[in-house]
Amino acid sequence: MPKADNPDTSTAALIIIGNEILSGRTHDTNTPWIAEKLTIHGVALEEIRVVPDIESAIIRAVNALRERYDYVFTTGGIGPTHDDITAASIAKAFDLPLERHEDAYKVLEDYYGIDDLTPTRAKMSLMPRGAGLIPNPVSGAPGFNIGNVYVMAGVPRIMQAMFDHIIREIRPGPPILSSTVTCAMAESTLADDMEELQALFPDVQIGSYPHYRGGSLGLSVVMRTTDDALLRRVTDELIARVRTHGIEPQAVSMKDMG
Amino acid sequence: MPKADNPDTSTAALIIIGNEILSGRTHDTNTPWIAEKLTIHGVALEEIRVVPDIESAIIRAVNALRERYDYVFTTGGIGPTHDDITAASIAKAFDLPLERHEDAYKVLEDYYGIDDLTPTRAKMSLMPRGAGLIPNPVSGAPGFNIGNVYVMAGVPRIMQAMFDHIIREIRPGPPILSSTVTCAMAESTLADDMEELQALFPDVQIGSYPHYRGGSLGLSVVMRTTDDALLRRVTDELIARVRTHGIEPQAVSMKDMG
Repeated sequence: MPKADNPDTSTAALIIIGNEILSGRTHDTNTPWIAEKLTIHGVALEEIRVVPDIESAIIRAVNALRERYDYVFTTGGIGPTHDDITAASIAKAFDLPLERHEDAYKVLEDYYGIDDLTPTRAKMSLMPRGAGLIPNPVSGAPGFNIGNVYVMAGVPRIMQAMFDHIIREIRPGPPILSSTVTCAMAESTLADDMEELQALFPDVQIGSYPHYRGGSLGLSVVMRTTDDALLRRVTDELIARVRTHGIEPQAVSMKDMG
Repeated sequence: MPKADNPDTSTAALIIIGNEILSGRTHDTNTPWIAEKLTIHGVALEEIRVVPDIESAIIRAVNALRERYDYVFTTGGIGPTHDDITAASIAKAFDLPLERHEDAYKVLEDYYGIDDLTPTRAKMSLMPRGAGLIPNPVSGAPGFNIGNVYVMAGVPRIMQAMFDHIIREIRPGPPILSSTVTCAMAESTLADDMEELQALFPDVQIGSYPHYRGGSLGLSVVMRTTDDALLRRVTDELIARVRTHGIEPQAVSMKDMG
């Protein structure tokens, strides 16, 4: 969720690097996984970009986002093949030399064995000077961070292990609480009520999400804030507003994440 | 896929507008659907951005991308509620007045009936001056285009109907053909071969996609080009390279999309 008004909430952006998402071949499952984890951790994910395996595109995204947000996460492009250009591109974005990271090289030596650590595999130890390592318990080759940019693999299982390591180092924000009220009504029917509630509760983020299932329109209203008592008040008020239209909500859920 | 070297291929970008994707609440299914349709149509999707329901964020994304790509598509934020700010934001991005689109207003009158077309619902007829309408056969309220920016609903079923209308107006490019070779091997084993093939076939985009299933690493090599004969040559050569490692590919597929 956007930063809203809580100054204790850190902000983040995510860069998905890979032609396969842009062609529609691969359905990106990393984004919802990371988004949910950040929300639980109290970090506001404010922008996502998907860019191809092209150096200039990666540099442009990294440099735009690392200035604007507290943390930038990237996935993809850190393997040993010709289309893995993330580390080199990020070194250029930071204007740093790309060089062998000795600890990363040792990790690769241990994983492959000295004899099987070919020059191609050793490419995975090339990182921007000064990078810190992010362990990879699945397939050896580590990710890295440089400044506020955290560079992870694209394979979901490896990315998840790397992210779980990173998140421990990131200062948690106040948990983002949310409630959801679902009703069988068109959102236009409730629009004025929601607008009034948003004005009455400026510290709550109120989102209106219409859906279309089984031939009829329905509505989920999602309310988000870090203040538990406030969340209960706005949720009760919203339910009362729904009832003024002669409709009983189908479901109300509260949880301590987005 | 990126534009690569074919000057006949148009480029596109996609902007997903909505807090619910950034919070992880909603898994975005619009992106892979649109990506696949564009690839089939021969249009190269080169960038995707997900931004929150914040005016400055929408303006920044629209203005950056409409300059850079032939077409920009947006999803989300065109309903009647307080958090639907896409039309107003895009009017500001183009420095155009936001005003009632008379044809859109008539569509809403027909859909709701004159008596039920409340001011809140009528908000959905506000568009940048000069916008063209995109019909919505599901729930009345149309999308619109202004310049090279096409503004669609976020609800998948409505978005899909709008997109199918738009795509007929977009000049198709040469179909992007692809082949995929899947093998049970680590990508590092085949990395040198793929790099050599990429150098030998510069007009083919060769992508290496490792995966991790059932405890072992596997690899899909995806080759893309608009030239059918070239695709067959590079695929045969890749298969021959895989066999030099004593491995038989598990699957080879060719299709006329990415």
